Amino acid sequence: MFSELHPAADPAVLDAADGLAAFRSEFAHDTEGLIYLDGNSLGRPPTTVLEAVKRVVDEEWTQRLIRGWDEWIETPARAGDALAAAVLGARPGEVLVCDSTSVNLYKLAAAALDAAGPDRRVLVTDDDNFPTDRYILAGLAQRGGGELRLVGTDIDDGVDVEAVTAALGEDTALLCLSHVSYRSGAIADMAEITRRAHAVGALVLWDLCHSAGSVPVDLEACGVDLAVGCTYKYLNAGPGAPAFLYVREELQRRLRQPLWGWFSQADQFAMGPDYSPRPDIGRFAVGTPPVVGVAAVEAAVAVTARAGVTALRDKSLRLGAYAQTLHDEWLKPLGFRLASPAEPHRRGGHLTLWHEDAWRIAQAMRDRGVIPDFREPDRIRLGFAPLYNGYADIHEGLSRMAEIVRTGGYEKYPSRRGAVT
Amino acid sequence: MFSELHPAADPAVLDAADGLAAFRSEFAHDTEGLIYLDGNSLGRPPTTVLEAVKRVVDEEWTQRLIRGWDEWIETPARAGDALAAAVLGARPGEVLVCDSTSVNLYKLAAAALDAAGPDRRVLVTDDDNFPTDRYILAGLAQRGGGELRLVGTDIDDGVDVEAVTAALGEDTALLCLSHVSYRSGAIADMAEITRRAHAVGALVLWDLCHSAGSVPVDLEACGVDLAVGCTYKYLNAGPGAPAFLYVREELQRRLRQPLWGWFSQADQFAMGPDYSPRPDIGRFAVGTPPVVGVAAVEAAVAVTARAGVTALRDKSLRLGAYAQTLHDEWLKPLGFRLASPAEPHRRGGHLTLWHEDAWRIAQAMRDRGVIPDFREPDRIRLGFAPLYNGYADIHEGLSRMAEIVRTGGYEKYPSRRGAVT
Repeated sequence: MFSELHPAADPAVLDAADGLAAFRSEFAHDTEGLIYLDGNSLGRPPTTVLEAVKRVVDEEWTQRLIRGWDEWIETPARAGDALAAAVLGARPGEVLVCDSTSVNLYKLAAAALDAAGPDRRVLVTDDDNFPTDRYILAGLAQRGGGELRLVGTDIDDGVDVEAVTAALGEDTALLCLSHVSYRSGAIADMAEITRRAHAVGALVLWDLCHSAGSVPVDLEACGVDLAVGCTYKYLNAGPGAPAFLYVREELQRRLRQPLWGWFSQADQFAMGPDYSPRPDIGRFAVGTPPVVGVAAVEAAVAVTARAGVTALRDKSLRLGAYAQTLHDEWLKPLGFRLASPAEPHRRGGHLTLWHEDAWRIAQAMRDRGVIPDFREPDRIRLGFAPLYNGYADIHEGLSRMAEIVRTGGYEKYPSRRGAVT
Repeated sequence: MFSELHPAADPAVLDAADGLAAFRSEFAHDTEGLIYLDGNSLGRPPTTVLEAVKRVVDEEWTQRLIRGWDEWIETPARAGDALAAAVLGARPGEVLVCDSTSVNLYKLAAAALDAAGPDRRVLVTDDDNFPTDRYILAGLAQRGGGELRLVGTDIDDGVDVEAVTAALGEDTALLCLSHVSYRSGAIADMAEITRRAHAVGALVLWDLCHSAGSVPVDLEACGVDLAVGCTYKYLNAGPGAPAFLYVREELQRRLRQPLWGWFSQADQFAMGPDYSPRPDIGRFAVGTPPVVGVAAVEAAVAVTARAGVTALRDKSLRLGAYAQTLHDEWLKPLGFRLASPAEPHRRGGHLTLWHEDAWRIAQAMRDRGVIPDFREPDRIRLGFAPLYNGYADIHEGLSRMAEIVRTGGYEKYPSRRGAVT
């Protein structure tokens, strides 16, 4: 499949054959010569998202003022429906754009734990899940009379279905995993793992932060109960744009989240004495929605929808395989090794490389105009966003990376780690 | 004091003598002829806020990309410090801009309930507190082994100190009240009520949504423990802009909120196995901050800071008294009555009028270019924002309002109520 991706291949030729290449011009590129390989952390701005933000503040807020709410009240569910259709394989009315991923995870995991019987108090996740997932679940277990059970995971290879299965039992309220591992990029088998959890009567919550917009997701076909995810990575909705949550329609009336904010109230503007949650996905809202952010999400999803996740995934696989061949040729001899699954189809949109001087190399790369990110311990993540990254980006980025290591150009940088990248 | 505010007074003369009149030109007014009296619900856009939003998306996001986080990581606390100094009478390190008011209320009230002993499980609020406050507290009480105790309140006159005091006891974990009532605009006596609650060993949480930027607040002088509030009303940060929370410095290490998101973690980017909350106000954060919204808050607070809350309050008192005299002269004979305290100093920035046809009148006002808002039951709220409203707005707005009622111009509108206004 990837035979054409030999390192000797001319990246310009590969880019010329790229059916998605035209999308690159739909993004703002005010950064001459910069090789941006961090769309897995913060996507670039689509020009339509920049326009949507300005439309909301210059037209809707400025001109409509409070009357803007006649429309804004609908946008969190409308943006959710767009995400459901284009990105998540969910049905209308199952997705809401609101809050942050962490807040949404809390709401849904708490709802699941509350709905579980007294004999199901265990929350299961893996010990390499993204920190906020582990911490939120730990807090819920501690406060809600539960127990957090961690599945041991190979941090380069992702969660193992059998190890996860062994951790599940009749005592399990909820299994929570990331679809694509933030560190290695390893993809978990959503369908099979969901099946295993359901077999013991547990609910399943998938964190889609690193897969939404990058890897095909079919929540309905997989029978997924709950999901959350962010919109600022492969979906490109901007820094701190609101997250989303998904609750399978059949579960919505059974589950109640603990933050009884007025936007989850059935007859919201009656402002009555008693709380009565809406019968639909709106019961998982809390407070006033971040209007500008929701509009950014809606505009961002439209870009991904036009490209299509299947086409994006196809290109992403090719980009990742190309980067892998360049790694094998140029970087492996310099002390790097893959810290991701070696098979492209087992990875999401990023490739992780280990090097003992990863932190210093990452700093040197930034100064040489290549933006990766760094993750503990000693890992450089290279994100390939098929909407705006091409083969030439990868060729040039990895070439500069190799040059930095070959010439010792990273040695002047401090070796402490841990800052934001 | 307000003798100059006779209805016969020429509003143009009053506006000409207004020391804050120049601020009006700092707001975007793309709405020719519109009389906007709803800044208590959604403030108008300051041009510097519009610029800040565009700067974040066009420069910081577009050009800095992920490197923007080098600065963005600091902005929630920086905006919080600005709010603390200019608006809240709090100290540096006591305020954070994050999430929605509802989410912040949940975090702080849950932290207070968790920190209280087994003999203090009562949460006290008033039965006319803003719905989200009552609902969030009800949810916490139900899930956290607590009890919600409601203080009966006159919805036109606000909370009564003695009635509140009678509801407090050795069983009380937390008293939560709004500083300015959303419905009547009545101001609660923050200093005295806080003293009464402390006398029985309870913590106090003030909801400042309707007072922040409108009424002087001195959290430190009043010894307030906790507070939350929004930024889109008198602070003008835009629809759904992030809220703030305040935790008195001495309490920060004692309190732990239940949403253990990664932004509350001590060594966040170590991404270690165990959750350990930050020692400072940052422990009340949860997920990735809404960067655009935080920048809007920071820019918005700067406008209020330059005007000064004392000067804003002085003008607000005059605007409210002026509206009251016009009401007495023009509207009272048409079936209106005050649904706010009659003494200007006992009200925040809005004046509430009852009329049996309030809903229809409010609709007719919109169509005649005067924007108030409507609240159940049968109340029209008129918000006077001293940064951009003048006497002429009030004169013209109330004149059109009287005309609508005098001519029966509202009778063609449907009498159902409850939509968003």
